[in-house]
Amino acid sequence: MLRTHTCGELRIDHVGQQATISGWVQKVRDKGGMIWVDVRDRYGITQLIFEEGQTDQSVLDVAREVGREFVISATGEVVERVAKNDKILTGDVEVKVSDLKILNKSKTPPFIIDNDTDGGEDLRAKYRYLDLRRNSVRSNLEMRHNLLQQTRAYLSKNSFMEVETPYLIKSTPEGARDFVVPSRMNPNQFYALPQSPQTFKQLLMVSGFDRYFQIVKCFRDEDLRADRQPEFTQIDCEMSFVTREDILETFEGLIRYLFKEVKGVELGELPHIPYSEAMSKYGSDKPDLRFGMQFHELNDLAQGKGFVVFDSAELVVGVNAEGCADYTRKQLDELTDFVKKPQIGAKGLVYVKCNEDGTFKSSVDKFFDQDALKAWADKFDAKPGDLILILAGDANKTRKALNELRLEMGTRLGLRDKNKYAAAWVVDFPLLEWDEETERFHAMHHPFTSPNPEDLDKLGSDPGSVRANAYDMVVNGVELGGGSIRIHDREIQSQMFDALGFTKEEAQNQFGFLMSAFEYGAPPHGGIAFGFDRLCALFGGQDSIRDFIAFPKNTSGRDVMIDSPSLIDADQLKELHLGLVKPAKNS
Amino acid sequence: MLRTHTCGELRIDHVGQQATISGWVQKVRDKGGMIWVDVRDRYGITQLIFEEGQTDQSVLDVAREVGREFVISATGEVVERVAKNDKILTGDVEVKVSDLKILNKSKTPPFIIDNDTDGGEDLRAKYRYLDLRRNSVRSNLEMRHNLLQQTRAYLSKNSFMEVETPYLIKSTPEGARDFVVPSRMNPNQFYALPQSPQTFKQLLMVSGFDRYFQIVKCFRDEDLRADRQPEFTQIDCEMSFVTREDILETFEGLIRYLFKEVKGVELGELPHIPYSEAMSKYGSDKPDLRFGMQFHELNDLAQGKGFVVFDSAELVVGVNAEGCADYTRKQLDELTDFVKKPQIGAKGLVYVKCNEDGTFKSSVDKFFDQDALKAWADKFDAKPGDLILILAGDANKTRKALNELRLEMGTRLGLRDKNKYAAAWVVDFPLLEWDEETERFHAMHHPFTSPNPEDLDKLGSDPGSVRANAYDMVVNGVELGGGSIRIHDREIQSQMFDALGFTKEEAQNQFGFLMSAFEYGAPPHGGIAFGFDRLCALFGGQDSIRDFIAFPKNTSGRDVMIDSPSLIDADQLKELHLGLVKPAKNS
Repeated sequence: MLRTHTCGELRIDHVGQQATISGWVQKVRDKGGMIWVDVRDRYGITQLIFEEGQTDQSVLDVAREVGREFVISATGEVVERVAKNDKILTGDVEVKVSDLKILNKSKTPPFIIDNDTDGGEDLRAKYRYLDLRRNSVRSNLEMRHNLLQQTRAYLSKNSFMEVETPYLIKSTPEGARDFVVPSRMNPNQFYALPQSPQTFKQLLMVSGFDRYFQIVKCFRDEDLRADRQPEFTQIDCEMSFVTREDILETFEGLIRYLFKEVKGVELGELPHIPYSEAMSKYGSDKPDLRFGMQFHELNDLAQGKGFVVFDSAELVVGVNAEGCADYTRKQLDELTDFVKKPQIGAKGLVYVKCNEDGTFKSSVDKFFDQDALKAWADKFDAKPGDLILILAGDANKTRKALNELRLEMGTRLGLRDKNKYAAAWVVDFPLLEWDEETERFHAMHHPFTSPNPEDLDKLGSDPGSVRANAYDMVVNGVELGGGSIRIHDREIQSQMFDALGFTKEEAQNQFGFLMSAFEYGAPPHGGIAFGFDRLCALFGGQDSIRDFIAFPKNTSGRDVMIDSPSLIDADQLKELHLGLVKPAKNS
Repeated sequence: MLRTHTCGELRIDHVGQQATISGWVQKVRDKGGMIWVDVRDRYGITQLIFEEGQTDQSVLDVAREVGREFVISATGEVVERVAKNDKILTGDVEVKVSDLKILNKSKTPPFIIDNDTDGGEDLRAKYRYLDLRRNSVRSNLEMRHNLLQQTRAYLSKNSFMEVETPYLIKSTPEGARDFVVPSRMNPNQFYALPQSPQTFKQLLMVSGFDRYFQIVKCFRDEDLRADRQPEFTQIDCEMSFVTREDILETFEGLIRYLFKEVKGVELGELPHIPYSEAMSKYGSDKPDLRFGMQFHELNDLAQGKGFVVFDSAELVVGVNAEGCADYTRKQLDELTDFVKKPQIGAKGLVYVKCNEDGTFKSSVDKFFDQDALKAWADKFDAKPGDLILILAGDANKTRKALNELRLEMGTRLGLRDKNKYAAAWVVDFPLLEWDEETERFHAMHHPFTSPNPEDLDKLGSDPGSVRANAYDMVVNGVELGGGSIRIHDREIQSQMFDALGFTKEEAQNQFGFLMSAFEYGAPPHGGIAFGFDRLCALFGGQDSIRDFIAFPKNTSGRDVMIDSPSLIDADQLKELHLGLVKPAKNS
């Protein structure tokens, strides 16, 4: 090794010893007679000292040559510092250098390599290898490493077998868009990259593997929103001979274990919330449960009083923002503007201030007297000093908008502390969603999700009312993972494909191998997948997954560091039997 | 759980308890009054018993319905067996069934699901999910799971950080052929799937990650030989501030640890064999060291005696097959036919039998008298009863042919026991290989391999003589892994690209990001990658990697189970701005 110790290793006990350390120059202070150089590696920072008259002139000359981010190797005696630094673990000592080598020079980096950096997003992306030198980014990836190891430890201990499933698989039009890979050896045919190893893990259950896991890259060619990546990592699991409760218990166990081991947090038991309740109480299937502020519906109290906005609404629903009765006109206007933003889509906002003196002031005083408002306040369990916020309109849209308002109020009230964690299972999702555009049902999870056995007879007659044997784990308003008990009966799988509008031929062509496998003794089974990038960001207390991925892509799917994707050789295209089509101007 | 115990769990201690077990029907024996059903899962086999008069008629009826590979769930009392089976761990007990459910039926499987199967390769590939039910295949994958966990445990303990590098990267014409992925969002541009994360792991060293590892899928679009897969798994590692010796020590430690933990084998220290010595003593850079039979060169003794085959040869070289002097004419003819096979390519084989009486009998008695043959025997350290086998011709080709003959003799003599392991490091490879066809040098490892510092000045003047700071780990004649100390200096990297015939523009276009990274403080670093599929096969004592991969592809790169690759929709092609070119008839 080109070192005897790392830059994070030397302590007061090492005083008097010789040490060689190697790393990057973080800082140089040259006070004429004395030079201090802070040298950094992944493990910490150590101070080097050079002294005019004591240090050899040749060594001093080298020390005066080094600059930020040079790679150096320094040998010398470990000495106690005069001025100690209790902010770093090596702060009691420094190395009195007797030999100094420059292992590699560095140009001045394009941005400051420190937790606070002056580099913008684009610059840091281009020089990602320098951005990764910053402690804040590297420590995210160290935590990711830890989460990887602990996840596998828990699952291995629980008899899960890690099995690698293939990356070059088959394209299926169902679901999101596939990335495809042309096959040279099978001209004009394509592989697809997996959106998930779903069918393979089910086949492993048919194979009797009993418990499977894999932490695996998955791929979706979607138009990227701010925090989506074309390739992402998933903790993928499947179990045989289980009921829903067995899966919830096992994976609640996993998440509790990770919180305990990696963050030292006791997560406690996860409540099970039916989808319908999540929607009516929070307007979302991934409610943020760090705070209450549940929805209350007002149709019975608020309709038929002549206020046409309410009277014409399918739903009148609100939340109680505790202690916000003193909101100013400006603040209330801000909230109104917030709900009227196109992506939220409410027509307006009704408020009721519960004054400290027991009276009420609302934006609809014209239609509702104090007694009426008192009845509302009672329903909301609102106390003097609280502020009730009400939206009205189409039920689904209004719930969705009120969910956004609830989250906004939670943020304003500081109820969404990133170091507090509230987790739950959301269960009993609808099996199918009606898609207005294509005029057919889509699988809410995927076509392999089992209907709730109680609802099985409605699959043919009233598909929209069938509940799925599916579940999502939600933490702090983020869907961390989801899964289902799967169909393991060929006949029911066939009915499901019918309900989704597959022809027999399409079903056979795309999933014939799975249908066929179900004829040879498929066990009851179910599973789950967790978004691993999202899990890392949650553990790191950040909203964006980007700094928990070593080499992320931008929102155009580009890696600007390596400049990819890129053009390929004509020879390559020829070998692949491909031609390029010039894109239309507006694409 | 749809069971209280697995099929491998019940013991004599459980007698008297109620148990529910679920699994697959392995065998049914119906003796009229008694029915026995063997039920199987991943953990073992348990015998169920049903008895006319004791078991409810309804349960007996169900028991008579079940057939091979049905999935059943049986509840009953654990009882001691009358006739015990000491071949299985559950052999002391059976379950006296009081309730039996068929969880899923099975058609008769297309082949017998047992270690010895009647299924041919093609049938088993098509029904891979059934093939995976066989204990012999599943236990390979269980070992693979174990190797995965132990590898990560060793590396994590040694401060290696697991970092996931991207799968959608950039195509580079250097090296093997890339699989490419068309980008929809960046029309007419392509990603490539990684042949290895080489440049990314080097960038992580530039980022100061110090020690990196990943067990990662890699992709090569090559014409597949019998035991190659288009996607394969690699243990990928890189370290900073190291010399070659540090890397050899660390990864010798890994392999020793794996042998100890997974196989209970003490591997011992690995000898370091220079490439030139491996070639001269074994004719191979991956010698099988389970046996000796080293090469001895005979040019000095065998040339100039009038035997034109030897006189005109660049090299006369042979091995001593101990105890084979009694080989018959037929056996010697077989060996001659063996070396004359086109893929081996020798012109003929000369033998010398060292008779028990101290005389010699050779195929070249006409040219060499007993004294001459005695001198040869002395050189080979051959004793009475041994057989010397000699080839002659072009040096490289003859060594290669003799390597094959040595391996063949090792096999015939039973010296290549799959349960014996002999490992070594081969070091000091040439940096560059001259390619006759393209009339330029190719990197023997890859363009990032550092030249041996002693040979650095010859990179411009005599590139062919430069040794690489590279190493391979060889076990039982198989290259298990390889790596090198990398170039970390921009100038030397630039010289290397020159030596390989890259123009400045090509180098910049393909590897500009790496060259650029080298300007910002790249530390000295090096690494290694192990073929994980190969490692599993080695540990499993098998030559083929196929049964150590859950879902392998065939030699045309097809997954015959899911029938992939396949055609994709015209809409998909249009979105990707791709057209298909009809392949030429002869392609």
